[in-house]
Amino acid sequence: MAKIKTKRERVKFASDNVTGACPEVLDAILQANDGDRTPYGNDQISTDLQNKFSEIFEKDVIVFPTASGTAANALALSTMTPSFGNIYCHKLSHINTDECGAPEFYTGGGKLVTLNGINGKITAEELDQTIMGKGIVHHTQPSSVSITQVCETGEVYQLDEIKKIADVSHKHNLNIHMDGARFANALVSLNVTPAEMTWKSGIDVLSFGATKNGCLAAEAIIFFNKDLVGNIAFLMKRAGHLLSKMSFVSAQLNAYISNDVWLKNAKHANEMGKKISEGLKQHSEINLTYPTEANEVFAKFPKQVIEYLNSKGYQMNEEELNGKSVRLVAAWNTSQSDVDELLETIKKSN
Amino acid sequence: MAKIKTKRERVKFASDNVTGACPEVLDAILQANDGDRTPYGNDQISTDLQNKFSEIFEKDVIVFPTASGTAANALALSTMTPSFGNIYCHKLSHINTDECGAPEFYTGGGKLVTLNGINGKITAEELDQTIMGKGIVHHTQPSSVSITQVCETGEVYQLDEIKKIADVSHKHNLNIHMDGARFANALVSLNVTPAEMTWKSGIDVLSFGATKNGCLAAEAIIFFNKDLVGNIAFLMKRAGHLLSKMSFVSAQLNAYISNDVWLKNAKHANEMGKKISEGLKQHSEINLTYPTEANEVFAKFPKQVIEYLNSKGYQMNEEELNGKSVRLVAAWNTSQSDVDELLETIKKSN
Amino acid sequence: MAKIKTKRERVKFASDNVTGACPEVLDAILQANDGDRTPYGNDQISTDLQNKFSEIFEKDVIVFPTASGTAANALALSTMTPSFGNIYCHKLSHINTDECGAPEFYTGGGKLVTLNGINGKITAEELDQTIMGKGIVHHTQPSSVSITQVCETGEVYQLDEIKKIADVSHKHNLNIHMDGARFANALVSLNVTPAEMTWKSGIDVLSFGATKNGCLAAEAIIFFNKDLVGNIAFLMKRAGHLLSKMSFVSAQLNAYISNDVWLKNAKHANEMGKKISEGLKQHSEINLTYPTEANEVFAKFPKQVIEYLNSKGYQMNEEELNGKSVRLVAAWNTSQSDVDELLETIKKSN
Amino acid sequence: MAKIKTKRERVKFASDNVTGACPEVLDAILQANDGDRTPYGNDQISTDLQNKFSEIFEKDVIVFPTASGTAANALALSTMTPSFGNIYCHKLSHINTDECGAPEFYTGGGKLVTLNGINGKITAEELDQTIMGKGIVHHTQPSSVSITQVCETGEVYQLDEIKKIADVSHKHNLNIHMDGARFANALVSLNVTPAEMTWKSGIDVLSFGATKNGCLAAEAIIFFNKDLVGNIAFLMKRAGHLLSKMSFVSAQLNAYISNDVWLKNAKHANEMGKKISEGLKQHSEINLTYPTEANEVFAKFPKQVIEYLNSKGYQMNEEELNGKSVRLVAAWNTSQSDVDELLETIKKSN
Repeated sequence: MAKIKTKRERVKFASDNVTGACPEVLDAILQANDGDRTPYGNDQISTDLQNKFSEIFEKDVIVFPTASGTAANALALSTMTPSFGNIYCHKLSHINTDECGAPEFYTGGGKLVTLNGINGKITAEELDQTIMGKGIVHHTQPSSVSITQVCETGEVYQLDEIKKIADVSHKHNLNIHMDGARFANALVSLNVTPAEMTWKSGIDVLSFGATKNGCLAAEAIIFFNKDLVGNIAFLMKRAGHLLSKMSFVSAQLNAYISNDVWLKNAKHANEMGKKISEGLKQHSEINLTYPTEANEVFAKFPKQVIEYLNSKGYQMNEEELNGKSVRLVAAWNTSQSDVDELLETIKKSN
Repeated sequence: MAKIKTKRERVKFASDNVTGACPEVLDAILQANDGDRTPYGNDQISTDLQNKFSEIFEKDVIVFPTASGTAANALALSTMTPSFGNIYCHKLSHINTDECGAPEFYTGGGKLVTLNGINGKITAEELDQTIMGKGIVHHTQPSSVSITQVCETGEVYQLDEIKKIADVSHKHNLNIHMDGARFANALVSLNVTPAEMTWKSGIDVLSFGATKNGCLAAEAIIFFNKDLVGNIAFLMKRAGHLLSKMSFVSAQLNAYISNDVWLKNAKHANEMGKKISEGLKQHSEINLTYPTEANEVFAKFPKQVIEYLNSKGYQMNEEELNGKSVRLVAAWNTSQSDVDELLETIKKSN
Repeated sequence: MAKIKTKRERVKFASDNVTGACPEVLDAILQANDGDRTPYGNDQISTDLQNKFSEIFEKDVIVFPTASGTAANALALSTMTPSFGNIYCHKLSHINTDECGAPEFYTGGGKLVTLNGINGKITAEELDQTIMGKGIVHHTQPSSVSITQVCETGEVYQLDEIKKIADVSHKHNLNIHMDGARFANALVSLNVTPAEMTWKSGIDVLSFGATKNGCLAAEAIIFFNKDLVGNIAFLMKRAGHLLSKMSFVSAQLNAYISNDVWLKNAKHANEMGKKISEGLKQHSEINLTYPTEANEVFAKFPKQVIEYLNSKGYQMNEEELNGKSVRLVAAWNTSQSDVDELLETIKKSN
Repeated sequence: MAKIKTKRERVKFASDNVTGACPEVLDAILQANDGDRTPYGNDQISTDLQNKFSEIFEKDVIVFPTASGTAANALALSTMTPSFGNIYCHKLSHINTDECGAPEFYTGGGKLVTLNGINGKITAEELDQTIMGKGIVHHTQPSSVSITQVCETGEVYQLDEIKKIADVSHKHNLNIHMDGARFANALVSLNVTPAEMTWKSGIDVLSFGATKNGCLAAEAIIFFNKDLVGNIAFLMKRAGHLLSKMSFVSAQLNAYISNDVWLKNAKHANEMGKKISEGLKQHSEINLTYPTEANEVFAKFPKQVIEYLNSKGYQMNEEELNGKSVRLVAAWNTSQSDVDELLETIKKSN
């Protein structure tokens, strides 16, 4: 058979999406592959998944599995935002800066109204002041709010922050979406339940991320507010996101949320993140840009440190949007020795 | 770990997308999963894939792997069709009847102009007569042509038919796309080379299907005409079809086109299709609707035969669009005994 | 002041949109121009217009004036058709052949499903058979029906024909739109009331045409079913069709529907159409393509007649879509002597 | 005939779009109405207009007349911005705040990236720093820049400011659009030529406004860079902005730019604006928000002054976006006595 070059690529810490699937998820794919299955998500695994998610969220939820996080976000937002609608979000939010206009594409031309926030988090106050123009035909119309949990600076929204933002959203009759690309990392950071971090705090729709934390390509759009489901099935099909062999996406998610796999993975990644953060603090010339609250570490490095790391095979880039910080991300498979090696290399760079 | 119910679903013959991945492809996923990889298709496996496809097509091609066939078609068409453009296609074509308007979505409102064709194939003559209105501001503008190989009635375009249609397309300055969801099945049916069935016959862009014939979720948009590539990378990202862990899609394709896996799978499926077709011919009350040229068989069954089959767990439906024919599809994993069992059951239904 | 070249252009009979405004409408523009007015349709003339239309249609209607018939059609359809929706219409319909894809643009990618009809009119039976796929995620969804009155072959739908088509539409939960670009011409042809030809026969939304029959640029979207109004005000603004000085569009419509101006103009145009039709029948080598039921005449002319007419300054074209017929259109300002001159010239061409 | 209520509406100073057409323009409409004309802008008046605009701009320009300023802006931007493109503009710009998302609609989902600027004008420096991400597939792509002249705070860009902004735009390979809704007012304010204020300063495409300054509904999209024209004719038709009786729009523009009508009107409006501004300065409790450089005056009024004015029939509103300033706009038909009456009323309010 085809011998794939499995040459190791030195991309550790560049992101948590450089990883493969964790063993439990991989095993689920193998199992799902055994035998024929009804296509387009009408299989038994996909049906079971709905129930499992409902258990985990302590509420009957409606779930649409998908292979892509960008699609999950954009599809979710398209159910709550007309073509002439405003989506309020942080200026650094992934939907604004890293999805090449997916929300605009899926909503048919919606407008992302960006907030400055404090570090990576928007505030209820700024949101409240920014929402205006409702009912006036000249203005694009306030429609939805999106927050990212873990947010783009590695910080985690506290429950009361989410509640306040959701309250302002609902006061203005807007729906609120959570981009949970790193949902599990936030969850273990806050040590709360999935229900508490979402619908109990007012979230209407969630993009539940799993790819970064142990799956190959598996996300889920989760509706807590069933009235919002609308025509998403048609929009999803129309966008090419209703995979024929959907059962293998569902199988990944199923394994991921079973037996605390997702929480175990996230807890580990957060711990490794913390170790990196602690390690960097030992270097007076390296400054953490934001507090490390989950598995992402942002810091400003001296130029020669970056160059030295890259000369050793790392891929460190100053990110323009984050004030020239370097982002280091720990993943479910980051080992203590990976972290030690990184910190050791940094030491040598001086 | 999570025990997935692997209860077997009796969907054999309903489609070739009810299958899992073939062993070679599954093994490639396992190999690709070992170690970290650069995301978004910038990994080594994806790079190698470009070369492998270029070898197979005897031409430097530009390849965009994707997890979805609908996305592959719509993205390909969006590179050759402006929002005010016409796409000429068969009235039964998958892009017209089974993608919930994906080409319209991705082109920003393009129009599918449907041809009646002969059975499932369009003809160069009808195409030539239908293209009109170029340059007149009131009319949507002739822009592209799309044919499906194997087409929607299970028939296969002959090389000279493709050439004539491509000639008419190019005479009118239109580009031509091939929806190759069952590309391999057509190829082994015609017993020609990939180059002969595509660019040597005038095809500009191909949706190369692999999911139905042994992959889990792997297709590829292949550009023979590099000028058409345009902004597809941005459109793909924007649609959520640039998966972060793209290497696992590339790995599937890599294994699929290596060591004749794809041809072996397709040859087997076609043979099984032929056996079904031969078997049905033995029944005077069953009439084949179209000639069986690849792995799909279309036939009109007496009502009670359908009911009997379904009572035995099969899932047979009369399809409105095909004049109330039932479609039976053989796949890479259809066994001789599966076919025997089917034919046996039909016999008993009388 | 600027002296505009008022050189007469010999375009009589080419269409009814070659005309200027009738005196009553022009006078209304002059009156509306006197003094300042609240912009964007919030002026008194626009408010009065709502009431006047409600009187004429014997029902409280909601009216959106616009300067463009194409916009009126597309905006109306966008209120009843989602981006993944089907609009059923005649293959010759203006929305399908002469608006460069406006319905697709405004609906965000809707699909026009074309019917063959009998001559220019669709039938309830064909419509009923064509509507399928509701609720199936793979198919674009049946959403709306559009008929043109006077239709594109110059024929007029009878009341019972409209009713049957509307019944089929509503049976399938579709809404029905009437493109009334030549609404007045149909009305006087049938000699019925505006209410009878629309909501009493089941029409939900009407594009009320006035430009061709005596206005400069004035149409109206008229909702009989208020639930359909939805977000049209935002869509209209967003498309640039909420003119700031909307009062001058309303003023045109106001004058047009007052004192039977519209009916008088249409009656005259229809009479002139009939005279052309009668005159052509005298020529054995000229064949009427369709019955003349309003102000449009379609006929097949010998080549040399067309050439002779054009040599005399007329602009006669064989239209591909109408089987190479020539269309002659009488307008509100077509005089008996214009018709005589035309028929005289035809006589001389032999 | 229909007697339209010509009750005067007290909307003076609310905007310059509350006015009717000036006598020269109205006369041109009457003249154009005499006789039949080729539709869709293929008439003689429209042809002449191209030449007249070329003379005025000292360059062969390509002109598309339209009835709507919002459409002019959005169509112009759609020629230079792909669906995944960024349009850089001031946060207060009309395209961002007052067109209900028209640029997003016409571009198919483009993103408006807003700049803070200084007062109402963007700066070359901020623009230069904001443009980033070119070629990176995750980011929407820098595509075009739009400035408004007169800008939304009533200030006028100086020639060197335009040049610097155009230079930065072109340095990044972006095209630059000018929203010239009050083009004439800026022109007489700067006392420069149309060429100097546009292409000689680097502008690629202009929305030439005429409605506010003496027309009924007439704007023009003017291309200095012919390569950008692209498919605008199809996009315009598709949007319903190719009016059949286009000659009456062209006739308005023709009269407007002939015999210095436009300059005369603008000069008068600016003078009246200045008088208002001077008058307000006499009141210590009223503060001008921005310098008065054309025909718009922005000022903060004590609440009771606003209430008193409104009690006298004026329509004064604090605008949220302009820091609760009231906007007063002088028009081509604002008389000295209108201004005196306004200032007198303000005096009495104390």
